[in-house]
Amino acid sequence: MTSRRLFSKALLSTVAACALGGAAIAAEPAELRESALDYFEVIPSMVPAIEGNAVTREKVELGKMLFFEPRLSASAIISCNTCHNLGMGGDDNLETSIGHGWQKGPRNAPTVLNAVFNEAQFWDGRAEDLKAQAKGPVQAGVEMASTPERVVTVLKSIPEYVDHFKTAFPGEDDPVTFDNMAKAIEAFEATLITPASRFDQFLEGNDTIMTETEMTGLELFIDTGCASCHNGVNVGGTGYYPFGVVEKPGSEVLPPDDKGRFAVTQTASDDYVFRAGPLRNIALTAPYFHSGKVWDLEQAVAIMSSSQLGTELSEDEVKAITAFLQTLTGQEPQVTYPILPVSSTDTPKPAAMIAN
Amino acid sequence: MTSRRLFSKALLSTVAACALGGAAIAAEPAELRESALDYFEVIPSMVPAIEGNAVTREKVELGKMLFFEPRLSASAIISCNTCHNLGMGGDDNLETSIGHGWQKGPRNAPTVLNAVFNEAQFWDGRAEDLKAQAKGPVQAGVEMASTPERVVTVLKSIPEYVDHFKTAFPGEDDPVTFDNMAKAIEAFEATLITPASRFDQFLEGNDTIMTETEMTGLELFIDTGCASCHNGVNVGGTGYYPFGVVEKPGSEVLPPDDKGRFAVTQTASDDYVFRAGPLRNIALTAPYFHSGKVWDLEQAVAIMSSSQLGTELSEDEVKAITAFLQTLTGQEPQVTYPILPVSSTDTPKPAAMIAN
Repeated sequence: MTSRRLFSKALLSTVAACALGGAAIAAEPAELRESALDYFEVIPSMVPAIEGNAVTREKVELGKMLFFEPRLSASAIISCNTCHNLGMGGDDNLETSIGHGWQKGPRNAPTVLNAVFNEAQFWDGRAEDLKAQAKGPVQAGVEMASTPERVVTVLKSIPEYVDHFKTAFPGEDDPVTFDNMAKAIEAFEATLITPASRFDQFLEGNDTIMTETEMTGLELFIDTGCASCHNGVNVGGTGYYPFGVVEKPGSEVLPPDDKGRFAVTQTASDDYVFRAGPLRNIALTAPYFHSGKVWDLEQAVAIMSSSQLGTELSEDEVKAITAFLQTLTGQEPQVTYPILPVSSTDTPKPAAMIAN
Repeated sequence: MTSRRLFSKALLSTVAACALGGAAIAAEPAELRESALDYFEVIPSMVPAIEGNAVTREKVELGKMLFFEPRLSASAIISCNTCHNLGMGGDDNLETSIGHGWQKGPRNAPTVLNAVFNEAQFWDGRAEDLKAQAKGPVQAGVEMASTPERVVTVLKSIPEYVDHFKTAFPGEDDPVTFDNMAKAIEAFEATLITPASRFDQFLEGNDTIMTETEMTGLELFIDTGCASCHNGVNVGGTGYYPFGVVEKPGSEVLPPDDKGRFAVTQTASDDYVFRAGPLRNIALTAPYFHSGKVWDLEQAVAIMSSSQLGTELSEDEVKAITAFLQTLTGQEPQVTYPILPVSSTDTPKPAAMIAN
């Protein structure tokens, strides 16, 4: 049995090497793993702790309700889940999102899956954590178009929500606040992690879980320099880099009027600087880049290598890296759809009829 | 223990009678139950069979995915669940829904909960069953704005969906069809029933599950004539009646340009005729009527009694009937949010950027 497996593996390896025309893996799995562990971490299968926001069961349950709560938006039809759809890889698979009054958002919606492991949130890192992030879309005129005051009025008008806030934030005099809304959502989002991808299983010692092509792709991902920016638990999401280190991509992919992190820091060196995209579950979240203009993962890999690394990869190399990226798809969280509490006569009426 | 309970009940009964100023229950619970069983049926706790569409586990699972599938809409952001939100009583709690391009729909979205027990679907009964109903919103320009051809192209472009259709419709040569999409959604919707409301428990023999006021409301509901139209399993949803049998309500509640079932039958006697609203879970689905203009359940009860029965109910009577209606809230289905399969490069791109 063992020898047959070895034989099959050797055969596969040869086939892969031929098919890839020279892009075959050089290192043995154990060697490749050692090198990979210099860059990447296995995703935890447990919900991580959040500084200053204990992830209690009560807070997670409330946060889940709020995540699916359309009444956080002025129209009462847009919830966090509208653009960060937990059935679709944690985003909306649109170039840029559609929000209040059918307005088009400025940037591609990032996935909420594993977002807790990002150093900061949004493409330009302007929110230091998920709690700060959660407050943004609720208030953005092109997204949910509400206000902290309206949100608090809505939540306080619904007795069952008041009870949930009391339970989730025990001992607080006035637990129904915009801040606590954000904390509860952050706690729920901390549970949205996707462990046990094939890549993680490889990192944990399984030599046969990735194909030869996928291991070749991982090796290329490290050796050509992708891993210099896309590393850590989330294979990205940790540092800021100019889009177009070597060569700026065309204006469709990199629209000239979105200067990225410059808007946050007002520093010339931050022109067109963005947070390196976290690549976990990347196969689920097309289209790509902050502009959302690239639908094909292979094309995205090719653009990255030429614009960031000045490398023209062969077609086989692009395919191998793409195959590796597909091993980053983890086990998505099973979420029971929450039953939301009913509005009272005091609940502000939806402003759905009014376009912005 | 028993005598203390009886004493409390007698006391409560007296208190309720005083508070209601004469609207107190006349009949004993057993007598009231007997009378109620002439009009109403206990909601089944099992999924009902559907003629010509076996409700198999595979079909239900596929139907659930399709129910939450935004790619059935042209924009790829509107799913069945957008307007029939399973967290909000199976509707969107808006006057009328918001659809493609932020367009406003013509009528209030009915709940999908227990819809399988309605005689026909839509406010005017123009769809004979849920399968026929499911095809409407997908194609309506103001709702999901897609076409049968587009839907089939989208579904066929996603290999995992093709597999699901094969499994759900075994033995069919070409299982991915618009008709089978509708059948799968119908099968899932058949599972969306809400058993074990307090009213059902009363019908099943529990004398103490409803308060005196609620039983008074039930008695009034029967005696004043509400139950002549709102009866059966769904306490409505079975017959067609003119809105304003005795007196037409104002044009805000009954807009003159929506003639209801007349548009289906082209018969003058069907002017302003609508299906009697099914009243199960009515406390969860404000605002009310096909126009969605009335947010308060007591007000809706008062309008119905004057326009349909020519009866001016006292405030206490309105309150008692409203209290009864609140016992119609059942146990909502627990639904695990489906993980939807990923698009392929062949999947048509969303038309989200284009308003209609």
